[in-house]
Amino acid sequence: MPIITLTSDFGTKDHSVAAVKGALYSELSQVTVVDISHEVPPFHITEAAYIIKNAYHNFPKGSIHIIGIDSELTPENKHLALFLDGHYFICANNGIMSLIAKEIRPEKMVEINIHNSIDTNFTVLDVFVRVAAHIFRGGTLEVIGKPIQAIKEIKNIEPVLLEQKNQLIGHVLYIDNFGNVVTNVTKKYLLQVAKGRKIKIKVRGIEFNQVYDSYSDAINFNEPKDKRVEEGKKIALYNASGYLELAIYRSNLNTVGSASSLFGLKLMSTININFS
Amino acid sequence: MPIITLTSDFGTKDHSVAAVKGALYSELSQVTVVDISHEVPPFHITEAAYIIKNAYHNFPKGSIHIIGIDSELTPENKHLALFLDGHYFICANNGIMSLIAKEIRPEKMVEINIHNSIDTNFTVLDVFVRVAAHIFRGGTLEVIGKPIQAIKEIKNIEPVLLEQKNQLIGHVLYIDNFGNVVTNVTKKYLLQVAKGRKIKIKVRGIEFNQVYDSYSDAINFNEPKDKRVEEGKKIALYNASGYLELAIYRSNLNTVGSASSLFGLKLMSTININFS
Amino acid sequence: MPIITLTSDFGTKDHSVAAVKGALYSELSQVTVVDISHEVPPFHITEAAYIIKNAYHNFPKGSIHIIGIDSELTPENKHLALFLDGHYFICANNGIMSLIAKEIRPEKMVEINIHNSIDTNFTVLDVFVRVAAHIFRGGTLEVIGKPIQAIKEIKNIEPVLLEQKNQLIGHVLYIDNFGNVVTNVTKKYLLQVAKGRKIKIKVRGIEFNQVYDSYSDAINFNEPKDKRVEEGKKIALYNASGYLELAIYRSNLNTVGSASSLFGLKLMSTININFS
Repeated sequence: MPIITLTSDFGTKDHSVAAVKGALYSELSQVTVVDISHEVPPFHITEAAYIIKNAYHNFPKGSIHIIGIDSELTPENKHLALFLDGHYFICANNGIMSLIAKEIRPEKMVEINIHNSIDTNFTVLDVFVRVAAHIFRGGTLEVIGKPIQAIKEIKNIEPVLLEQKNQLIGHVLYIDNFGNVVTNVTKKYLLQVAKGRKIKIKVRGIEFNQVYDSYSDAINFNEPKDKRVEEGKKIALYNASGYLELAIYRSNLNTVGSASSLFGLKLMSTININFS
Repeated sequence: MPIITLTSDFGTKDHSVAAVKGALYSELSQVTVVDISHEVPPFHITEAAYIIKNAYHNFPKGSIHIIGIDSELTPENKHLALFLDGHYFICANNGIMSLIAKEIRPEKMVEINIHNSIDTNFTVLDVFVRVAAHIFRGGTLEVIGKPIQAIKEIKNIEPVLLEQKNQLIGHVLYIDNFGNVVTNVTKKYLLQVAKGRKIKIKVRGIEFNQVYDSYSDAINFNEPKDKRVEEGKKIALYNASGYLELAIYRSNLNTVGSASSLFGLKLMSTININFS
Repeated sequence: MPIITLTSDFGTKDHSVAAVKGALYSELSQVTVVDISHEVPPFHITEAAYIIKNAYHNFPKGSIHIIGIDSELTPENKHLALFLDGHYFICANNGIMSLIAKEIRPEKMVEINIHNSIDTNFTVLDVFVRVAAHIFRGGTLEVIGKPIQAIKEIKNIEPVLLEQKNQLIGHVLYIDNFGNVVTNVTKKYLLQVAKGRKIKIKVRGIEFNQVYDSYSDAINFNEPKDKRVEEGKKIALYNASGYLELAIYRSNLNTVGSASSLFGLKLMSTININFS
């Protein structure tokens, strides 16, 4: 039986998440509901997209992902159900799907049209739960919506390659729980534009001359433990999600500090990458 | 099989919630346990009541709701199990049930009396888990407690209608994850006392001359997008739970601010409503 | 079927916890996954150990506990799977198991050796999930690792009994959600070294002349409610986990304050206990 996941900006203190779960269990007695995250900052579509993009594909094919971010129905914010990459997504047509799956073509997309029968101002509870239950029971998307050919596209700021091709301007895309700074530069893209040249990264006066493949790659375990720089070492690496990340080894806000705090980087801050 | 929900002020960092779940899974191998909220401020019965009141009825009938707020057994704080509105509740007799279900008459109420066989200073773990397991297995309340006729009643501050009947004094009942301000005035009561007159709400120098039925009702989607006031617009509405709420459209503490921060409203702050 | 629990320092905003759950549900269609805590401070092995120690034994025997704290594989941080006290643990050999189960002898311990077949820099997702699934399906530890005889031992600071045997120096081990202060002194050890003498605890100028067995033991319910000291009363007690704890009765940071804030105590702060 498919799993249903929930992502929202509802937080975990209020009743909202539990109300959605209660409604799901009322519709479907044998369902497994899994939280992806409810701590997305209010209406923050790009953070939500980063989180969902890195989580959804770990779930079994056929899973149903409910996204309760900026989902109030308005004339400009219709509701969608999509099937892509073997997964179902239920969300508003606010551009989030174009960020989650920019390289993946949806196999099916419908604009949900069952609202007339539902009087609600709590969309996720009333509309998305009903659509999820329909899909869970094996129903087709065409029954709950009309097929559409295009969805709203929004774009994250993309890295900019300067004309001379020797500098790339990236931006901070996400800051994780450890205060590590994820950039909008993927490993794939960076290696492609570097064309074998040496990569040097500069942020706020700090230089990184090497990009590691993991946190521990940056540590030389052949050196004696008391000689080597370890805790608090500033490193650039390709993270587990395939993005260039600036990090502090064994980062801890309360002791050695975090990359975000030490480098003074926030969402959307600029990162300079030079090739030589 | 019934669902068991948990609400507490334990937070989610400590071991307490997991210990309760472990004990439930040890007693009942096939149970579904769902968190309502564990971020109730310590001993805050009124916030807990608001959260549970808005969550519980979404769960299937027969669900068992464990409430671990102010639940230490004392001579003045006995333990209850109740059946009302098709749901079971296990909690302390500290008044919380009178807030959750003030208009609903319990069908059954017992004072739990199985404590002699349990030596504990972690009530929820040891007593409430055992009672929940008993109910889950189909046991009756009479087996684990003695029937009682009344429970402790506490009252939230109720809205006050001034003698001339042209002004209502409400209070802030809850502030949600978006910083929106929920008042203790229900839509039902407000319409009843307004008797068709115009409703004008005043807080800290800000006036609301209209109460909308949803967030997006406050936006005129016929106006061109660049002309209309939208993000950050101050609105009064009836929220999904049926209460008068003061909100900021697409509220975000880090950008446009929240109703709570912008209006300087806290729990128990006064709201003036005038009829004309 | 065994339950799988998760403990980590990943936080609940990022995708990491959901990615691990997705991977578990992909491997095992009928599994129950329960969070112990994801709010362990980064790399904080001693806090994680306190939380897990107090949670795990409540779960059914045969449960599988995944611990994602400081778990990156390095030449100095190998991966372990252990069976002890009827439970399975999967974690790094960083000393955490010696804190969780210092008095319990593992029945089986292996160093996991399936890494060659896995290319990962997200250990918990890729290695620990696979090991957990193997154990869940009934596989033996020897298949996924080589038996070892000893694991890394680290020690929390232990209480120090002064030579004259009339003073014990304890330390703060953990501060809970209510701001109550848990010391590293167990009830068992304290009673043993007190040898029936009177126990007097001193912290920052505050004296506790009695150690209660629960919060409410400290209140005299025979006194009229308006005469007795209750809310905000400073008390020492043996907590539900068997440790000496300094607490505030009905502690609430926003009103009466918490033990931690009022006494100025942090992790590792000193507690003096005198016997007379």
